[in-house]
Amino acid sequence: MVNVVICGGSGYTGGELLRILSGHPHITITAVTSEKSAGKKVVEVFPHLHKYNNLIYEPLNKEKLLNKADMFFLALPHGTSQETVNFLFSKNKKVIDLSADYRLNDPKVYKKWYGLPHKFLPALKKAVYGLPEVYRSKIKKAGLIANPGCYPTGAILGLIPALKNELIDVSSIIIDSKSGVSGAGRKADLNISYCEVNEGFRAYAIGTHRHIPEIEQELSLLYGKKIVVNFSPHLVPVDRGILTTIYAPVAKKKNAGEILRIYTDAYRKEPFVRVLDYGLYPNIKNIRGTNICEIGLKLNELTNTLIVVTAIDNLVKGASGQAVQNMNIMMGIDEKTSLDTIALFP
Amino acid sequence: MVNVVICGGSGYTGGELLRILSGHPHITITAVTSEKSAGKKVVEVFPHLHKYNNLIYEPLNKEKLLNKADMFFLALPHGTSQETVNFLFSKNKKVIDLSADYRLNDPKVYKKWYGLPHKFLPALKKAVYGLPEVYRSKIKKAGLIANPGCYPTGAILGLIPALKNELIDVSSIIIDSKSGVSGAGRKADLNISYCEVNEGFRAYAIGTHRHIPEIEQELSLLYGKKIVVNFSPHLVPVDRGILTTIYAPVAKKKNAGEILRIYTDAYRKEPFVRVLDYGLYPNIKNIRGTNICEIGLKLNELTNTLIVVTAIDNLVKGASGQAVQNMNIMMGIDEKTSLDTIALFP
Amino acid sequence: MVNVVICGGSGYTGGELLRILSGHPHITITAVTSEKSAGKKVVEVFPHLHKYNNLIYEPLNKEKLLNKADMFFLALPHGTSQETVNFLFSKNKKVIDLSADYRLNDPKVYKKWYGLPHKFLPALKKAVYGLPEVYRSKIKKAGLIANPGCYPTGAILGLIPALKNELIDVSSIIIDSKSGVSGAGRKADLNISYCEVNEGFRAYAIGTHRHIPEIEQELSLLYGKKIVVNFSPHLVPVDRGILTTIYAPVAKKKNAGEILRIYTDAYRKEPFVRVLDYGLYPNIKNIRGTNICEIGLKLNELTNTLIVVTAIDNLVKGASGQAVQNMNIMMGIDEKTSLDTIALFP
Amino acid sequence: MVNVVICGGSGYTGGELLRILSGHPHITITAVTSEKSAGKKVVEVFPHLHKYNNLIYEPLNKEKLLNKADMFFLALPHGTSQETVNFLFSKNKKVIDLSADYRLNDPKVYKKWYGLPHKFLPALKKAVYGLPEVYRSKIKKAGLIANPGCYPTGAILGLIPALKNELIDVSSIIIDSKSGVSGAGRKADLNISYCEVNEGFRAYAIGTHRHIPEIEQELSLLYGKKIVVNFSPHLVPVDRGILTTIYAPVAKKKNAGEILRIYTDAYRKEPFVRVLDYGLYPNIKNIRGTNICEIGLKLNELTNTLIVVTAIDNLVKGASGQAVQNMNIMMGIDEKTSLDTIALFP
Repeated sequence: MVNVVICGGSGYTGGELLRILSGHPHITITAVTSEKSAGKKVVEVFPHLHKYNNLIYEPLNKEKLLNKADMFFLALPHGTSQETVNFLFSKNKKVIDLSADYRLNDPKVYKKWYGLPHKFLPALKKAVYGLPEVYRSKIKKAGLIANPGCYPTGAILGLIPALKNELIDVSSIIIDSKSGVSGAGRKADLNISYCEVNEGFRAYAIGTHRHIPEIEQELSLLYGKKIVVNFSPHLVPVDRGILTTIYAPVAKKKNAGEILRIYTDAYRKEPFVRVLDYGLYPNIKNIRGTNICEIGLKLNELTNTLIVVTAIDNLVKGASGQAVQNMNIMMGIDEKTSLDTIALFP
Repeated sequence: MVNVVICGGSGYTGGELLRILSGHPHITITAVTSEKSAGKKVVEVFPHLHKYNNLIYEPLNKEKLLNKADMFFLALPHGTSQETVNFLFSKNKKVIDLSADYRLNDPKVYKKWYGLPHKFLPALKKAVYGLPEVYRSKIKKAGLIANPGCYPTGAILGLIPALKNELIDVSSIIIDSKSGVSGAGRKADLNISYCEVNEGFRAYAIGTHRHIPEIEQELSLLYGKKIVVNFSPHLVPVDRGILTTIYAPVAKKKNAGEILRIYTDAYRKEPFVRVLDYGLYPNIKNIRGTNICEIGLKLNELTNTLIVVTAIDNLVKGASGQAVQNMNIMMGIDEKTSLDTIALFP
Repeated sequence: MVNVVICGGSGYTGGELLRILSGHPHITITAVTSEKSAGKKVVEVFPHLHKYNNLIYEPLNKEKLLNKADMFFLALPHGTSQETVNFLFSKNKKVIDLSADYRLNDPKVYKKWYGLPHKFLPALKKAVYGLPEVYRSKIKKAGLIANPGCYPTGAILGLIPALKNELIDVSSIIIDSKSGVSGAGRKADLNISYCEVNEGFRAYAIGTHRHIPEIEQELSLLYGKKIVVNFSPHLVPVDRGILTTIYAPVAKKKNAGEILRIYTDAYRKEPFVRVLDYGLYPNIKNIRGTNICEIGLKLNELTNTLIVVTAIDNLVKGASGQAVQNMNIMMGIDEKTSLDTIALFP
Repeated sequence: MVNVVICGGSGYTGGELLRILSGHPHITITAVTSEKSAGKKVVEVFPHLHKYNNLIYEPLNKEKLLNKADMFFLALPHGTSQETVNFLFSKNKKVIDLSADYRLNDPKVYKKWYGLPHKFLPALKKAVYGLPEVYRSKIKKAGLIANPGCYPTGAILGLIPALKNELIDVSSIIIDSKSGVSGAGRKADLNISYCEVNEGFRAYAIGTHRHIPEIEQELSLLYGKKIVVNFSPHLVPVDRGILTTIYAPVAKKKNAGEILRIYTDAYRKEPFVRVLDYGLYPNIKNIRGTNICEIGLKLNELTNTLIVVTAIDNLVKGASGQAVQNMNIMMGIDEKTSLDTIALFP
């Protein structure tokens, strides 16, 4: 049994960590923090989490929390995460950081996109980007995981086989993503109030979203050369889910069957990636509440374009589920523990 | 390990049985039937059920299925369920019937509301109404369970303590229910097509819904005298959930605290009924995907009216979850097996 | 041509006034106020109102606005409306107040429910409750209209014929209302954020909602004796619409046809009330965006209960549409001017 | 006054024609047809259309209808429209065909995509593609209008200025569209039933949708050379609206301001196209129920890509509103007649 602390447990990703971990046979949650809700029961903030009837939010007191656990999940806003991560990591605690603070290898890039200096470069150097499909062996031995962003998870998983097999011309990759509203977090904000979002659909932050450098970093590392992308997020009036439609010119003469085989082979052993039969496309509804990424493929021979469609649940594979997957890998237990679930449909 | 067959596995309740049972440690699903989808893989009909990758729908052939299991779930339309239930039950199989065919004790009432004669009166006599909160000890020994309807489950659970403690005047009980769309089943029907339902809200079948005799039967049995009710269903544009608001004049002078205590005491040992603190009301979103019934209470002293609000997931506690709860009781195992989950929120 | 000023134009009712009035042939909007958005173009706050391209929000300066119009709509929060209404009314301006400040005749009742004293009793005495179906002749001559609340409009219109014809026993009227989310106003508030509301359904403020004294006042005036009601509001995940299901014991022996005739006769000349054929119930989707109240009737002879279902758009007949209807009556022009529209379906 | 007949009035586009035309001062609807609903009142099929209380659906009898009108709208399925259009047109009636039957100039292309031969080539030759922003002068004199498809309208309007000004490299245009559910029509179909669509998001028919040849035909005509496109439609869980995100490499060195000016100039005189300020993107919610196309622009200088986002209401500018716009042009009256409305928001 491993003791676990969740720092930042009153947002959607924090609530989702509590939901997923509630069924985990090898961990005990010893504390959960929230500045805003300190002193409140978890069940007051999240009535669906009535199983945690005795758990009470406390303020994040690093020193006090230190001895409560060996594994720390941080679901704090970027910027505020930096220091706590560094402190815990320096004390030899295992840390899984769901914020963006340790995802970008280059502190200059971090500063440019997040407007803040990174103050803990040694820790940043040690951080492992927590995408198991790429970094599993490093995650096993890591002490600090930078848990990937939701959009990057859906985009990168859609491109790994294409990049590794040099299927595509990387000079004009287009990533058109559509996210449910929970991606914006749990907060009082007119922009995500019901009547503003419901029955609407819109693009936002085209070419300026903070997940762009993260996507580009990982695609470039995979490919071995610098890749820049067009990334356009959109807001879908649903609670959960990201569907990403990716377009890239085909670089190698391959037919649809060959491309499908490359993708299927690439993910054959992955417990949470499912490549659909050719001609089928994923629906976020079919993977809701699960850690699965579904992938559909289309080769448009008329335009010589490969189209990859991926679907994830932004709160699970895009955040808390992937965090638990990383924890399982770090603990050396079955990666699917507590994650081997079926989507709630309808 | 018990072998289980699901008859009628391509509707929402059938799909939900497959979802819930997928994690059950003591059962094996040996067959699933569907006339319409016979020959298709389950995963073609329900892509979210990819765990059942090798399971294929077959036509319902009673003789052939007989030896495949000891426990049969029937999620067939009313009318067509009658005979299959009787056949399996007569062969000493355990049967849990999710249709309405064996819920009404009086075949004349069945005929009046469903327009069909009941042809299997001996089996009907042996059927136990599968509401564990009332009939647990009978369910333990039963061979044939009539699994309750969704609306009746929410309505009856809201009234049991009031009736047993004679808190209310039963002459003018009003049951105003609001159901998500999955209650209408999985079918091609203009009335439940997206654009007809979305952004709408309406009442239907006021005073004529087929769940009325079922509610009245059970309330009358609980109370010991004939009870008639006003029942008004409404359609809510959500996938799942039934919220029921019940009104009845208070018959005994009790204050809010006393009424809360009566309800709390009545359900203290029930694993799937949660009485909320006074002043809190349930939200179907908080129990989505779970087998829980949440209950909120209000005593309006100005009008001398008790108001009870209950929330269930119509596909779980209102159908497939309750069916699995009944199976667990029949098997003599922990009633919560495979049902002890947390709602998917948001 | 009449000059019109809208005080409080950045909320949903203010935006709806602008939408409805944009097609009105006899008025000119000369100013619109908003403290929060002062200096901004209307179209920045409401991109759908691009027709008002040159209109800019200004702070509410009573003295300065006085000469800009003869007709003032106030869509301000209760409490803050009191004084401005009184000032404008005392200067002989026509005032239509969409807040609750002048709806309750008895200042003690106002104080009890709104927690504030009413400081302008002479104006309060002159205020006419702006429900044309009851007070049309008074509205014609009024200088100050207290525009009805959304829930009261749906509830009262459903009960007028029953009360006037003494069809029902008034001792146990139950009003079960279900409202879309725009009724909560346009604001940053976690409780109405998308992911909290979507896929949910809940009751709130049972027996404690501030619209209760307004409903009771008007029903009592109609009936000639004090009436108290059970009122239970619920939140529906849709933008617009209120469906109200009303239950009352039948006091007079009447059959369904007779009751239908009484309702039909009562509303025969009303341009915005439609009584549906017996057996049909309204759907908020069918009257969305219109000033219409639809009414469906059911006589449950087994329980001797009359059930009335009404549907309105809370922002139109429940607020801004009714306000414009009142303005038309005050101006002596066709009551339907700018309101004779068809619902947006689907 | 012009007499108008609507053939196919029981689908969403037919209902929308009735809604829009109800306020048109210069036309009278003399008949509306529906095979399925023949004999029924319009208001039975569309309760929101209660203004048409005396209008009854009749079967489509060409000969009988001929003398009832000079202007015919046909909202029939493709294939069945061909002959009726030809008959009416040959009798010198003005015809506006909302089906796809007369949109593709080349009958071979029609046959390839729709699987049917085109039997009326002389009429096909005379048909004018009813996109006023391109063909206004031809529409004025036309007898037969092929009303554009919903996706093509949004896509083409987003590309006209770029093509005419040779801003982009046309070899790899990507059109990623997201449509509300009403685009699938009004029908009993499991795929568009509420619980299948709600809380979901998916791509479909990538590279195979029948609107592809229509888009390519019109873009090619505008550009003067053959253009092929990648077109990927997606299904959004909303009633109405299409958002289209278009990507193309920039061919000419222009800055954002210059591109904005080219677009603004191109549409300056268009009553129903609004180019937003640079950095703003349209939301389908802001133009719901209107005939407006809103356009947002982004120049991604890092990737040298022009991104154009357009929003229309698929049932209005994408179907029935554009049809009425075409009628107004053909009648020589103000193009905005009956279309100059404000979106229903929220």
